Amino acid sequence: MQTVLKGPSSEVIIAPDQPIVIIGERINPTGRKAFSAELREGDLSRVARDAVAQINAGAAVLDVNVGAAGVDEVALLPQAVQIVQDTVDVPVCLDSANPDAIAAGLKVVKGRALINSVNGETDKLKAVLPLVAEYGAAVIALCMDDTGIPSTPGQRLEVAQNILDAARSYGIPPEDILLDPLVMAVGADHKAAQVTVETARMLRASTGCNLTAGASNVSHGMPERDTLNTVFLALLAQAGINAPICNPLKNGLSIRAIDLLSGRDEWGARYIKLYRATKTDE
Amino acid sequence: MQTVLKGPSSEVIIAPDQPIVIIGERINPTGRKAFSAELREGDLSRVARDAVAQINAGAAVLDVNVGAAGVDEVALLPQAVQIVQDTVDVPVCLDSANPDAIAAGLKVVKGRALINSVNGETDKLKAVLPLVAEYGAAVIALCMDDTGIPSTPGQRLEVAQNILDAARSYGIPPEDILLDPLVMAVGADHKAAQVTVETARMLRASTGCNLTAGASNVSHGMPERDTLNTVFLALLAQAGINAPICNPLKNGLSIRAIDLLSGRDEWGARYIKLYRATKTDE
Repeated sequence: MQTVLKGPSSEVIIAPDQPIVIIGERINPTGRKAFSAELREGDLSRVARDAVAQINAGAAVLDVNVGAAGVDEVALLPQAVQIVQDTVDVPVCLDSANPDAIAAGLKVVKGRALINSVNGETDKLKAVLPLVAEYGAAVIALCMDDTGIPSTPGQRLEVAQNILDAARSYGIPPEDILLDPLVMAVGADHKAAQVTVETARMLRASTGCNLTAGASNVSHGMPERDTLNTVFLALLAQAGINAPICNPLKNGLSIRAIDLLSGRDEWGARYIKLYRATKTDE
Repeated sequence: MQTVLKGPSSEVIIAPDQPIVIIGERINPTGRKAFSAELREGDLSRVARDAVAQINAGAAVLDVNVGAAGVDEVALLPQAVQIVQDTVDVPVCLDSANPDAIAAGLKVVKGRALINSVNGETDKLKAVLPLVAEYGAAVIALCMDDTGIPSTPGQRLEVAQNILDAARSYGIPPEDILLDPLVMAVGADHKAAQVTVETARMLRASTGCNLTAGASNVSHGMPERDTLNTVFLALLAQAGINAPICNPLKNGLSIRAIDLLSGRDEWGARYIKLYRATKTDE
């Protein structure tokens, strides 16, 4: 199954037999005080820099999130999207909890965007799926619904199937949906990572869909987060996650290593190229 | 299936539902010029230090190899084994291409040793399996034979089954055998790592045996070896390798991370303990 995203004049294909597609997560004020403050002032000067740095570090798609207290996302998300696509020729991932901001972003986006995100909640399905259908976008679907986040892989699969059914009723096919098995902090529940990996395996086997995940959530509150995140990305990739959302500045080379060690990088060319590029930057 | 190894008064259990057992690889002159020179002089002063450092970094079993040009392994291997077991209470892995050195090591070893290694070559089977049987040891079996190293997972499985059959004829049960799918350098063949991972999966599914591998071979000649080795250990672990031979000083915490993210480390206790221990050492 192929999920096709497009930039202004570029195309990114997400498919199980292809190299992993990194969705860069850095254009997001969560946990970044300076960026949050800038966004409240309407200052988007950081966005172009973050875009270039992430592409150089191996990202193929850029998540764009401007959601912080006191920020008018409906006004700012389209501006940020335009800056990103004026700077780098890649597809964007419109990331907002506010459907109006998503709609505003879709109006200016060039190519074919990914929407982050829908889930199984009744209101969310009704608000987001019509936008996906209207703009012919792709969408990330989180395996949670009105009852919350299911604790077992089987229950999360059920939520995914409900979302796929709802999407079909809007004419949205499974290849336009990236399922997200949900990543919880292993520091709060030492079985959490295993549940995510099992869910990913089950989602891939049962639906054939391409899969995403916000990998770095797993290490929240733990020491040596980079080690945990690198290992987790490898476990996730082997379970079928082929378009993780992560920080390429930290995990880009690890993901190229996963591709190389999975036989998806002839002669290690992409691994070595990224190694050289990032070493030069240092 | 449980493989039980013993130190002077300790026990290590290797089993699929248990945390990963690290076999520390550092007591080995390969690629260590100073250690090679010391061994030629009969100087074993480094052995006790290397033993302690590896145990502190998370190893549960220590490989002991004194093979270098100009070294009398038959004389030196038993001495090194005694130093290790006088220093730390762990099982040893007797590592030599010379069956006489293995025999000499077995005479002095306390507990239940692992022998490194046998393979499917006719002469090797005849030389090593009688020692395994006589001393009630366990043994690492490499998936290669008189025809060389098979290129496909299916052929490597066939070699493994031949070795298991030969072992049975000496009264050695499968639980006393750690199969090694063989790790080749990904720099020489970009499909090599994938073949190892596939072989591991097939070996576990078909034989139920516990599995080992010399993980760091994979990154030979490549830049950023630690990143490749960390990722590869995660891929190997998910494919069933539960007793890798590696350098715990570099990969110990990564392996604890794999256990934690696989749900085999309640509250992350072992991960955090090793993190604290190694941070103090720095």
